[in-house]
Amino acid sequence: MKKIDLMILAEHMYTMEGEGVGYLANSGVAINGGKIIAVAPSEQLKKEYEAEKLITVGDKVLMPGFIDGHLHSGHGVLRGVAQDINNWMMHGMAPFEAQRSYEAKNGGSRLAIAEAIMNGTTTIGDDGTEMEGACQFIKDCGVRGNISIRIREALQRVYKPGELYEYDENYGQKTLCECLNLFDQFNDVDNGRIKIRFGPQGPDFVSEATLMKVKKMAKERKSKIHMHLSQGSRETKQMMMRYGKKGIPWLAEKDYFDCDFIGIHLTDATPEEVKLFSKTGAKMILCSSSIAIIDGVVPPAKQFQDAGGICGLGSDQASGNNCHNMINEMKMTAILNKVHYENPEVMPAWKVVRMATIENAQALGIDHITGSIKEGKDADLILVDLKQASLTPLYTKPIRNFIPNLVYSARGNEVDTIIVKGRILVENKTAITFNMEDILREAQAFADEIGERATPQFIDINGKNVQYMKEQKL
Amino acid sequence: MKKIDLMILAEHMYTMEGEGVGYLANSGVAINGGKIIAVAPSEQLKKEYEAEKLITVGDKVLMPGFIDGHLHSGHGVLRGVAQDINNWMMHGMAPFEAQRSYEAKNGGSRLAIAEAIMNGTTTIGDDGTEMEGACQFIKDCGVRGNISIRIREALQRVYKPGELYEYDENYGQKTLCECLNLFDQFNDVDNGRIKIRFGPQGPDFVSEATLMKVKKMAKERKSKIHMHLSQGSRETKQMMMRYGKKGIPWLAEKDYFDCDFIGIHLTDATPEEVKLFSKTGAKMILCSSSIAIIDGVVPPAKQFQDAGGICGLGSDQASGNNCHNMINEMKMTAILNKVHYENPEVMPAWKVVRMATIENAQALGIDHITGSIKEGKDADLILVDLKQASLTPLYTKPIRNFIPNLVYSARGNEVDTIIVKGRILVENKTAITFNMEDILREAQAFADEIGERATPQFIDINGKNVQYMKEQKL
Repeated sequence: MKKIDLMILAEHMYTMEGEGVGYLANSGVAINGGKIIAVAPSEQLKKEYEAEKLITVGDKVLMPGFIDGHLHSGHGVLRGVAQDINNWMMHGMAPFEAQRSYEAKNGGSRLAIAEAIMNGTTTIGDDGTEMEGACQFIKDCGVRGNISIRIREALQRVYKPGELYEYDENYGQKTLCECLNLFDQFNDVDNGRIKIRFGPQGPDFVSEATLMKVKKMAKERKSKIHMHLSQGSRETKQMMMRYGKKGIPWLAEKDYFDCDFIGIHLTDATPEEVKLFSKTGAKMILCSSSIAIIDGVVPPAKQFQDAGGICGLGSDQASGNNCHNMINEMKMTAILNKVHYENPEVMPAWKVVRMATIENAQALGIDHITGSIKEGKDADLILVDLKQASLTPLYTKPIRNFIPNLVYSARGNEVDTIIVKGRILVENKTAITFNMEDILREAQAFADEIGERATPQFIDINGKNVQYMKEQKL
Repeated sequence: MKKIDLMILAEHMYTMEGEGVGYLANSGVAINGGKIIAVAPSEQLKKEYEAEKLITVGDKVLMPGFIDGHLHSGHGVLRGVAQDINNWMMHGMAPFEAQRSYEAKNGGSRLAIAEAIMNGTTTIGDDGTEMEGACQFIKDCGVRGNISIRIREALQRVYKPGELYEYDENYGQKTLCECLNLFDQFNDVDNGRIKIRFGPQGPDFVSEATLMKVKKMAKERKSKIHMHLSQGSRETKQMMMRYGKKGIPWLAEKDYFDCDFIGIHLTDATPEEVKLFSKTGAKMILCSSSIAIIDGVVPPAKQFQDAGGICGLGSDQASGNNCHNMINEMKMTAILNKVHYENPEVMPAWKVVRMATIENAQALGIDHITGSIKEGKDADLILVDLKQASLTPLYTKPIRNFIPNLVYSARGNEVDTIIVKGRILVENKTAITFNMEDILREAQAFADEIGERATPQFIDINGKNVQYMKEQKL
């Protein structure tokens, strides 16, 4: 009998290996040193291994943890401050974002990351500026991080309509240095649990010279580029003014896209642009719920997939989405694509579960480490409690109904246990490596401060949300 | 000091009175004999009333319970058996529905109703055949019921494409008698807590003569007509073959619509039909999530509202939706309409919360009893726990963010306490008037039987779900 750290034996397991969801009955995983060392029938594992901790489950499903491919955790402290509004960024969020201190941002990050974990996310694809706090929390609490640091050259100020962004080389250099510093500090921490990526904010925010420098530096460090792309008319106007071309054709012409490029959103990419982009081997992350709420748009994920592209899912930010819950993202992706194509067969449940696990790992370039239950990969696993109304009853023949019910019925609180690299972060719905009560209390205290300081600008902007407040609609 | 049954004092209350969401700070409700006898500042209530039970909350929001305007609870036992499929009813659900016994249906009803209650629903708008079991459970567990009994004349058998439904007067009479029996047995039980409605299944399923008889009987009994309408091409074909007219124009010509008519779905109603329907004073119930999943369609609720109509929300059925969670319905209604109109300002959070409470009560004709917190109405209330990541942080100035976070972030498990007619059904997330564990266990046992018996027909139909099973996608 080989001694190992952890063994989980489950009546129902979905490995996400193969073309589908990889269902196995009465099987388990043997875990040692954070890695999956065997996936086999439970009876066989019991004969071969003696585990320090043994988890045997009949009424919980074992599956890979969810991967959130793109989120801005620092916005956690701004949850729901801007909603149902056309100019979401400037008329909704701006007064609050302007008053968010570095500490408040870190408090928001802890809130968003803890929320995501409790909903079953084992890889946090965080993106933003001043990311030390988020990285430190990710390092400490044990979740996996795939962190992109924002690089930007356009000065942060209010621009008039039709005004070209003012680039400042020093500002660009400063943000690039921040990225490199974070890379040195956190990349490959805990044997690769944290990966640092290069995050030029978008083709309109960074000069061509810096974009090229970023690509070279990312390649040298075997990292990736994670970049917003085809975000809408604001980006298009800037690109047309500056280069006479939209983001995708311009970057394609510069050979900027390859299999290490991850494009976020593609909100208004045309069918031709989607094809052009997919042919390069670049990947796409889709934030269905956020883009639907903020822009009223269903991005072209299906077109990208039909053209052979790999597409993952992300929760974006709590000031617009308003939650970090990959079950919600799976549901919204499935349903929004059905109505977009007026076809209930589009984006079936099994596909969006893949997009939240193995295909997201492929999109982020970490599928050799995580995203499915396979010998040799890290043990990033969740247990989902079946003894919940939302998942009852369970059919196992002639049809298995767990996958559709996980996508269309589950809420997030069915997730029971969360394991990353073999370490149990949450067990029986109780967080072990972080204190949820403290995180909630801290976030609340920051919000009270932000609200007070944001009031004058909020009133001054006099946007739709001010009107709603006056009309007793909020 | 006047002695009363129950008093709830809340730092944050949303009454849903007025045009918006009716926010009150530091106020409460005095409840006696199941009714709200006062809504006033907490300090004032404390001086005037001595309550047998006093609930004082700072970290929970007090608001009216949700109303589910249209669901088929008996399908609870078929949760998620048919998904991502074009011919959902025949190629997906049929093999399972055919094997569902009366007892299994009742078990499904208990599951669906208990699930809805735990997600904050205080009025169950159930619809179907053989409803004694559902009515009895509603009577016993204390939730409010607005029950329509299905009346149908078209024989239940497989029809060839292009074949006109065969009407059987005896079958029609039998279903009408069932409706009348249930009316006598349950209407106005517990001082009006249960209302029985007349539910002709659709304009294509019932003859003109019987439709007219139903209308007369409903009027005589001061009841309502609750009917599926403009459900799609299947209905349209039948109506065109039989009458040369679609459902809405045909029924309008017969003066069938008035303020006591509730039309369900309107999936493919044209803009002209929507206007025609709204002008009659008839009401609409929208099942956003179900119709998006089953048909890939966003029904014309906004058009109906723009034409002056009152529209409520429903969760439809667990074999297609797959949950009974009005927070999910609010979210899907807001988001699906945004993408349908490509406008984030369409269907704001405050509007869908109204559609799940006061406007649903208006649609069902029970707004004099429930749907808002107002002196004289029954005490149908919920408390929502703010100490959850999904609702943290709470902003109270300059903007209140509870309403958008309830719609876009909450999952359902934030609902903490459920009160109907002053009786506490659920307290601190624990059911008091029903046993959730028993309900889950029973539903599971029924499903095991149904699955076994459904297998031959499931294989024989050889639909998309069979293919998914073969491909390891479920």
